[in-house]
Amino acid sequence: MSWLDQIKWDAQGLVPVIAQENATGDVLMFAWMNREALQKTAELGRAVYFSRSRNRLWFKGEESGHVQQVHDIRLDCDHDVVLLKGTPRGHGRGIACHTGRHGCFCQSLQDEQWQAVDPVLKDPETIYK
Amino acid sequence: MSWLDQIKWDAQGLVPVIAQENATGDVLMFAWMNREALQKTAELGRAVYFSRSRNRLWFKGEESGHVQQVHDIRLDCDHDVVLLKGTPRGHGRGIACHTGRHGCFCQSLQDEQWQAVDPVLKDPETIYK
Repeated sequence: MSWLDQIKWDAQGLVPVIAQENATGDVLMFAWMNREALQKTAELGRAVYFSRSRNRLWFKGEESGHVQQVHDIRLDCDHDVVLLKGTPRGHGRGIACHTGRHGCFCQSLQDEQWQAVDPVLKDPETIYK
Repeated sequence: MSWLDQIKWDAQGLVPVIAQENATGDVLMFAWMNREALQKTAELGRAVYFSRSRNRLWFKGEESGHVQQVHDIRLDCDHDVVLLKGTPRGHGRGIACHTGRHGCFCQSLQDEQWQAVDPVLKDPETIYK
Protein backbone atom coordinates (compact mmCIF):
# COMPACT_ATOMS: atom_id res chain seq x y z
CA MET A 1 0.00 0.00 0.00
CA SER A 2 1.36 3.39 -0.99
CA TRP A 3 2.03 6.01 1.69
CA LEU A 4 -0.52 8.16 -0.14
CA ASP A 5 -3.20 5.49 0.33
CA GLN A 6 -2.66 5.59 4.08
CA ILE A 7 -4.02 9.11 4.26
CA LYS A 8 -7.70 9.62 5.05
CA TRP A 9 -8.66 12.04 2.30
CA ASP A 10 -11.89 13.93 2.98
CA ALA A 11 -15.04 13.78 0.84
CA GLN A 12 -13.46 16.31 -1.57
CA GLY A 13 -10.25 14.25 -1.79
CA LEU A 14 -8.35 16.80 0.30
CA VAL A 15 -6.31 16.84 3.48
CA PRO A 16 -5.61 19.91 5.68
CA VAL A 17 -1.96 20.94 5.82
CA ILE A 18 -0.06 23.03 8.37
CA ALA A 19 3.22 24.61 7.22
CA GLN A 20 5.77 25.24 9.95
CA GLU A 21 9.19 26.85 9.77
CA ASN A 22 11.73 24.22 10.73
CA ALA A 23 14.30 26.57 12.23
CA THR A 24 12.01 28.64 14.48
CA GLY A 25 8.91 26.48 14.95
CA ASP A 26 6.74 29.35 13.65
CA VAL A 27 3.45 28.19 12.16
CA LEU A 28 3.44 29.89 8.77
CA MET A 29 0.17 28.99 7.12
CA PHE A 30 -2.63 26.53 6.68
CA ALA A 31 -3.79 25.16 3.32
CA TRP A 32 -5.11 22.03 1.61
CA MET A 33 -3.62 19.31 -0.58
CA ASN A 34 -5.06 16.68 -2.83
CA ARG A 35 -3.23 13.48 -3.62
CA GLU A 36 -1.33 14.94 -6.56
CA ALA A 37 -0.24 17.99 -4.56
CA LEU A 38 1.18 15.85 -1.77
CA GLN A 39 2.93 13.55 -4.22
CA LYS A 40 4.51 16.57 -5.96
CA THR A 41 5.51 18.05 -2.60
CA ALA A 42 7.37 14.87 -1.70
CA GLU A 43 8.95 14.56 -5.17
CA LEU A 44 10.08 18.16 -5.48
CA GLY A 45 10.89 18.93 -1.83
CA ARG A 46 8.83 22.10 -2.07
CA ALA A 47 5.28 22.82 -0.99
CA VAL A 48 2.58 22.24 -3.59
CA TYR A 49 -0.95 22.88 -2.34
CA PHE A 50 -4.37 22.52 -3.89
CA SER A 51 -6.11 25.86 -4.29
CA ARG A 52 -9.80 25.40 -3.56
CA SER A 53 -10.68 28.84 -4.97
CA ARG A 54 -8.81 28.24 -8.24
CA ASN A 55 -9.52 24.50 -8.28
CA ARG A 56 -6.00 23.58 -9.35
CA LEU A 57 -2.53 22.77 -8.03
CA TRP A 58 -0.82 25.74 -6.44
CA PHE A 59 2.96 25.58 -6.53
CA LYS A 60 3.60 27.82 -3.51
CA GLY A 61 5.74 30.71 -4.76
CA GLU A 62 4.68 30.38 -8.39
CA GLU A 63 3.67 34.07 -8.44
CA SER A 64 5.27 35.53 -5.33
CA GLY A 65 8.59 33.70 -5.57
CA HIS A 66 8.11 32.73 -1.90
CA VAL A 67 8.80 29.07 -2.36
CA GLN A 68 8.65 26.74 0.67
CA GLN A 69 11.43 24.19 0.85
CA VAL A 70 10.21 21.06 2.64
CA HIS A 71 12.48 19.07 4.97
CA ASP A 72 10.02 16.80 6.71
CA ILE A 73 6.46 15.65 5.96
CA ARG A 74 4.52 14.54 9.04
CA LEU A 75 1.17 12.79 9.42
CA ASP A 76 -0.96 12.83 12.56
CA CYS A 77 -2.26 9.94 14.63
CA ASP A 78 -5.63 9.89 12.82
CA HIS A 79 -4.03 10.00 9.34
CA ASP A 80 -6.06 13.02 8.32
CA VAL A 81 -3.81 16.07 8.85
CA VAL A 82 -0.37 16.77 7.35
CA LEU A 83 2.36 18.93 8.89
CA LEU A 84 5.16 20.26 6.66
CA LYS A 85 8.40 21.37 8.27
CA GLY A 86 10.36 23.58 5.97
CA THR A 87 12.05 26.84 5.11
CA PRO A 88 10.10 29.78 3.66
CA ARG A 89 12.04 31.76 1.05
CA GLY A 90 11.95 35.48 0.28
CA HIS A 91 13.16 38.68 1.94
CA GLY A 92 15.56 37.54 4.62
CA ARG A 93 13.46 35.73 7.25
CA GLY A 94 11.17 34.39 4.54
CA ILE A 95 7.61 35.31 3.67
CA ALA A 96 4.72 32.87 3.65
CA CYS A 97 1.74 35.26 3.80
CA HIS A 98 0.18 37.11 0.87
CA THR A 99 0.11 40.23 3.08
CA GLY A 100 3.93 40.26 2.97
CA ARG A 101 4.32 38.91 6.50
CA HIS A 102 6.49 36.05 7.71
CA GLY A 103 3.43 33.96 8.52
CA CYS A 104 -0.35 34.19 8.23
CA PHE A 105 -1.24 34.10 11.94
CA CYS A 106 -0.60 37.78 12.45
CA GLN A 107 -3.65 38.74 14.54
CA SER A 108 -3.71 38.20 18.28
CA LEU A 109 -6.79 38.40 20.49
CA GLN A 110 -6.20 41.16 23.04
CA ASP A 111 -8.98 42.65 25.18
CA GLU A 112 -11.61 41.09 22.92
CA GLN A 113 -10.11 42.65 19.79
CA TRP A 114 -7.94 41.23 17.03
CA GLN A 115 -4.66 43.15 16.91
CA ALA A 116 -2.13 42.81 14.07
CA VAL A 117 1.08 41.95 15.89
CA ASP A 118 3.50 40.85 13.15
CA PRO A 119 5.26 43.30 10.84
CA VAL A 120 4.80 43.51 7.08
CA LEU A 121 8.21 42.63 5.63
CA LYS A 122 7.40 43.52 2.04
CA ASP A 123 4.63 45.58 0.46
CA PRO A 124 2.27 43.06 -1.20
CA GLU A 125 1.92 45.40 -4.20
CA THR A 126 5.57 44.80 -4.98
CA ILE A 127 5.18 41.03 -4.53
CA TYR A 128 2.34 40.49 -7.00
CA LYS A 129 3.07 42.56 -10.09
CA MET B 1 -18.84 43.93 15.94
CA SER B 2 -17.68 41.14 18.23
CA TRP B 3 -14.30 39.49 17.66
CA LEU B 4 -16.25 36.26 17.15
CA ASP B 5 -18.20 37.81 14.28
CA GLN B 6 -14.96 38.61 12.49
CA ILE B 7 -14.23 34.94 11.98
CA LYS B 8 -15.31 33.30 8.73
CA TRP B 9 -17.07 30.22 10.05
CA ASP B 10 -17.48 27.46 7.47
CA ALA B 11 -20.80 26.04 6.25
CA GLN B 12 -20.97 23.86 9.39
CA GLY B 13 -20.27 26.84 11.63
CA LEU B 14 -16.75 25.61 12.38
CA VAL B 15 -13.20 26.92 12.08
CA PRO B 16 -10.02 24.79 11.91
CA VAL B 17 -7.69 25.19 14.88
CA ILE B 18 -3.98 24.44 15.26
CA ALA B 19 -2.65 23.98 18.81
CA GLN B 20 1.00 24.84 19.30
CA GLU B 21 3.18 24.57 22.38
CA ASN B 22 4.27 28.06 23.31
CA ALA B 23 7.58 27.14 24.88
CA THR B 24 8.93 24.85 22.14
CA GLY B 25 6.96 25.77 19.03
CA ASP B 26 5.88 22.14 18.65
CA VAL B 27 2.64 21.72 16.73
CA LEU B 28 0.59 19.53 19.05
CA MET B 29 -2.69 18.84 17.30
CA PHE B 30 -5.35 20.01 14.91
CA ALA B 31 -9.06 20.21 15.72
CA TRP B 32 -12.20 22.26 15.12
CA MET B 33 -14.13 24.86 17.07
CA ASN B 34 -17.59 26.32 16.79
CA ARG B 35 -18.43 29.76 18.09
CA GLU B 36 -19.23 28.57 21.59
CA ALA B 37 -16.01 26.55 21.83
CA LEU B 38 -13.89 29.55 20.88
CA GLN B 39 -15.74 31.81 23.28
CA LYS B 40 -15.23 29.30 26.11
CA THR B 41 -11.55 28.95 25.20
CA ALA B 42 -11.06 32.70 25.52
CA GLU B 43 -13.09 32.90 28.74
CA LEU B 44 -11.46 29.97 30.51
CA GLY B 45 -7.93 30.24 29.13
CA ARG B 46 -8.00 26.55 28.26
CA ALA B 47 -8.68 24.81 24.95
CA VAL B 48 -12.29 23.87 24.27
CA TYR B 49 -12.89 22.24 20.90
CA PHE B 50 -15.96 21.04 19.06
CA SER B 51 -15.94 17.28 18.56
CA ARG B 52 -17.40 16.51 15.15
CA SER B 53 -17.71 12.80 15.94
CA ARG B 54 -19.53 13.40 19.23
CA ASN B 55 -21.28 16.55 18.00
CA ARG B 56 -20.67 18.46 21.22
CA LEU B 57 -18.18 20.70 23.00
CA TRP B 58 -14.99 18.92 23.95
CA PHE B 59 -13.20 20.41 26.95
CA LYS B 60 -9.71 19.17 26.08
CA GLY B 61 -8.55 17.06 29.02
CA GLU B 62 -12.06 16.30 30.30
CA GLU B 63 -11.27 12.56 30.22
CA SER B 64 -7.50 12.39 29.90
CA GLY B 65 -6.67 15.22 32.30
CA HIS B 66 -4.40 16.61 29.57
CA VAL B 67 -5.73 20.14 29.69
CA GLN B 68 -4.26 22.77 27.35
CA GLN B 69 -3.65 26.14 28.95
CA VAL B 70 -3.98 28.88 26.33
CA HIS B 71 -1.73 31.95 26.36
CA ASP B 72 -2.43 33.47 22.96
CA ILE B 73 -5.23 33.09 20.41
CA ARG B 74 -4.20 33.96 16.86
CA LEU B 75 -6.22 34.44 13.70
CA ASP B 76 -4.85 34.22 10.17
CA CYS B 77 -4.94 36.80 7.37
CA ASP B 78 -8.06 35.28 5.80
CA HIS B 79 -9.93 35.10 9.13
CA ASP B 80 -10.66 31.41 8.69
CA VAL B 81 -8.02 29.53 10.72
CA VAL B 82 -7.20 29.86 14.44
CA LEU B 83 -3.83 29.16 16.08
CA LEU B 84 -3.67 28.54 19.84
CA LYS B 85 -0.38 29.00 21.64
CA GLY B 86 -0.39 27.26 24.95
CA THR B 87 0.97 24.73 27.39
CA PRO B 88 -0.09 21.08 27.28
CA ARG B 89 -0.45 19.49 30.72
CA GLY B 90 0.25 15.93 31.81
CA HIS B 91 3.31 13.74 32.36
CA GLY B 92 6.22 16.16 32.43
CA ARG B 93 6.56 17.54 28.90
CA GLY B 94 2.79 17.43 28.45
CA ILE B 95 0.66 15.13 26.37
CA ALA B 96 -1.72 16.30 23.66
CA CYS B 97 -2.24 13.09 21.68
CA HIS B 98 -4.66 10.29 22.54
CA THR B 99 -1.83 7.83 21.77
CA GLY B 100 0.02 9.16 24.82
CA ARG B 101 2.51 11.20 22.79
CA HIS B 102 3.52 14.82 23.23
CA GLY B 103 1.85 15.78 19.95
CA CYS B 104 -0.20 14.13 17.21
CA PHE B 105 2.23 14.57 14.29
CA CYS B 106 4.28 11.54 15.18
CA GLN B 107 4.69 9.96 11.76
CA SER B 108 7.40 11.14 9.39
CA LEU B 109 7.66 10.24 5.70
CA GLN B 110 10.94 8.42 5.16
CA ASP B 111 11.76 6.46 1.99
CA GLU B 112 8.09 6.52 0.99
CA GLN B 113 6.97 5.06 4.31
CA TRP B 114 5.38 6.60 7.39
CA GLN B 115 7.64 6.01 10.38
CA ALA B 116 6.58 6.71 13.98
CA VAL B 117 9.32 9.00 15.25
CA ASP B 118 8.00 10.38 18.55
CA PRO B 119 7.97 8.33 21.77
CA VAL B 120 4.86 7.28 23.68
CA LEU B 121 5.14 9.04 27.05
CA LYS B 122 2.24 7.25 28.70
CA ASP B 123 0.33 4.09 27.84
CA PRO B 124 -3.07 5.21 26.52
CA GLU B 125 -4.75 2.39 28.44
CA THR B 126 -3.73 4.09 31.66
CA ILE B 127 -4.93 7.50 30.38
CA TYR B 128 -8.50 6.52 29.54
CA LYS B 129 -9.81 4.34 32.33
